[in-house]
Amino acid sequence: MTQELFSFTIEATEGNARAGTFITRHGALQTPVFAPVGTQATVKALTPRQLEELGATLVLANTYHLYLRPGDELIAEMGGVHEFMQWHGPMLTDSGGFQVWSLGDINEVDDDGVTFRSHLDGSLHRFTPERSIAIQQNLGADIMMCFDELADPDNYDYLKLALERTHRWAARCREAWTNRDRQALFGIVQGGIFEDLRAQSAEAIASLDFPGYAIGGLSVGESKEDMYRTLEVTTPLLPADKPRYLMGVGTVEDLIHGVARGVDIFDCVLPTRLARHGAAMTEYGRLNMKNARFARDAAPISETCDCYTCQTFSRAYIRHLLKSEEMLAATLLSIHNVRTLVRLAQEMRAAIIRGEFASFAAETLAKLEQPV
Amino acid sequence: MTQELFSFTIEATEGNARAGTFITRHGALQTPVFAPVGTQATVKALTPRQLEELGATLVLANTYHLYLRPGDELIAEMGGVHEFMQWHGPMLTDSGGFQVWSLGDINEVDDDGVTFRSHLDGSLHRFTPERSIAIQQNLGADIMMCFDELADPDNYDYLKLALERTHRWAARCREAWTNRDRQALFGIVQGGIFEDLRAQSAEAIASLDFPGYAIGGLSVGESKEDMYRTLEVTTPLLPADKPRYLMGVGTVEDLIHGVARGVDIFDCVLPTRLARHGAAMTEYGRLNMKNARFARDAAPISETCDCYTCQTFSRAYIRHLLKSEEMLAATLLSIHNVRTLVRLAQEMRAAIIRGEFASFAAETLAKLEQPV
Repeated sequence: MTQELFSFTIEATEGNARAGTFITRHGALQTPVFAPVGTQATVKALTPRQLEELGATLVLANTYHLYLRPGDELIAEMGGVHEFMQWHGPMLTDSGGFQVWSLGDINEVDDDGVTFRSHLDGSLHRFTPERSIAIQQNLGADIMMCFDELADPDNYDYLKLALERTHRWAARCREAWTNRDRQALFGIVQGGIFEDLRAQSAEAIASLDFPGYAIGGLSVGESKEDMYRTLEVTTPLLPADKPRYLMGVGTVEDLIHGVARGVDIFDCVLPTRLARHGAAMTEYGRLNMKNARFARDAAPISETCDCYTCQTFSRAYIRHLLKSEEMLAATLLSIHNVRTLVRLAQEMRAAIIRGEFASFAAETLAKLEQPV
Repeated sequence: MTQELFSFTIEATEGNARAGTFITRHGALQTPVFAPVGTQATVKALTPRQLEELGATLVLANTYHLYLRPGDELIAEMGGVHEFMQWHGPMLTDSGGFQVWSLGDINEVDDDGVTFRSHLDGSLHRFTPERSIAIQQNLGADIMMCFDELADPDNYDYLKLALERTHRWAARCREAWTNRDRQALFGIVQGGIFEDLRAQSAEAIASLDFPGYAIGGLSVGESKEDMYRTLEVTTPLLPADKPRYLMGVGTVEDLIHGVARGVDIFDCVLPTRLARHGAAMTEYGRLNMKNARFARDAAPISETCDCYTCQTFSRAYIRHLLKSEEMLAATLLSIHNVRTLVRLAQEMRAAIIRGEFASFAAETLAKLEQPV
């Protein structure tokens, strides 16, 4: 039986947690899933072969960066972003919206779109919903995102205005989406930490009938309590038969709390960024691998980790590479950190299928409290 | 039939070129061979798995660097440099002499040894022949090098003085070498570009009966003609039944000219250093991969290369990674450049065995003259 493109099948649930499968042209994506971020069409310091070996299935690339350099038209000429970076599994591109606000120098926001200056050379550019979709169609990822407006998560009045614009833009993105036989377009629910705005946004976005839905505007400075509470009230308002994607979230605890609240897909730069700064993510929390106490430590970063780094190298060696400012440190720690979150998502999926997610989540969260 | 440790068997010769096998505790080393350099116990930007996949068999590490950081005693505690960096094939350490002169701040040179300041923190250290061997025995590489004094290749009077000291130091190194069942010690012939000094040095060093001999003090600024001429007069003076190692040499043309003059082993930082600067070594010469003409070039760096990089990625992608200052560029170009020299050595070996080295060398050198 061939499964329909962009269909989402839920194989098991436990409470709000779900184990599902989302069908793309580049393979079936099993959820829950954690996606490492390949901002400039490369997950920093990792080859696609290393990504595949550590079990990554979904990779995100950033539309803003690739539009500016090397250009989405060049990537289209080279056969699309999969072919360009030689990642043959499912891919996702964001809309460019988040980076326009966080990296670009905003020149003007109006109802039609955003004019901004490039963080690379100060040149002037304009994104509209239509432009974002055209760029994402040039990139050719399996999942595209609607172009939205970002606002502070606790500024109610501005959020309300931004939300209305975001909903109008979502409808325009849907109109601009022409290659529905190749790429899925996900809607994004905004509304900061306010329940009524999230409800309003979920209703507006869900009414547009997208193949999947993202929860945006979280993990941007609000408290963990606010984030979990907002998730709790938002996911039940989204269509149960479509995948749910929590954007920009990637810690062990946030993945567990997210899955417990019905999230299926996560992405974050954190594992690779922490790696470049010498921090290892483990089941017991983060380790600063530059610490002098690791200088003569023959143990792996984590005794229970199955990644190439932990199966091969000692903490002493990783520390030496960091102290010596060797590039290999970033590679080895990125392998470990990404594997940690990829495996966590795999383990949560298996636990949901076994009906043991609640105990798995409780045990895993309890370990994080333990000192190393 | 088990072969004796550090025995060198010559399987074929053609003119002065030889195909041989040198036996170490970490395996049989087939020559000619090119060794990538892992200065700080890592070949920059490459995992040991990637090194193995690209066919590297011998890896060099730098005694000066590892003595200063993390310390040779720490590496000994961790089981030696093989175990520390998880490279399980043959390894070679230099004596630290070259780096003391090129990186350290020399405080005093006397007949006993050299006092220098660390390039890392300015701390004061002293290397003697005995100390260099003790450090190298702590590191535990399969091949160690005698501690020698470096001098300008065209300063005859100083070279003559340095040579006499180097010969006395070689005898002291040989005395200090205690673990002869684990590590081989190679003597080093010096003498700059002067035939009489090289002859004097070869005779003195060969009389000490080492398991192998290195030709030092070349590729340090002299002309190619001087280098090839010096090689030509030096190798015939070395014992024919022992391996010959030309230190610090690693271009396509120098490997060919070296093998033609009887060299068996080469090492150089060039392939990995060029990689970090965006240059690809190819059969047709070097390519600056940042060049705008590669922006939309879907071809691999080299159509005939069998490395992971060329089998997987386009020139356009490599250029994008370089322009975007992505670490992956250094990894992919290092894989390609090291593979280029490793394969060249393998091809020269095969050509010698077939009796076709002369034509292989001529054809390969001719290609280098061709424009890309």
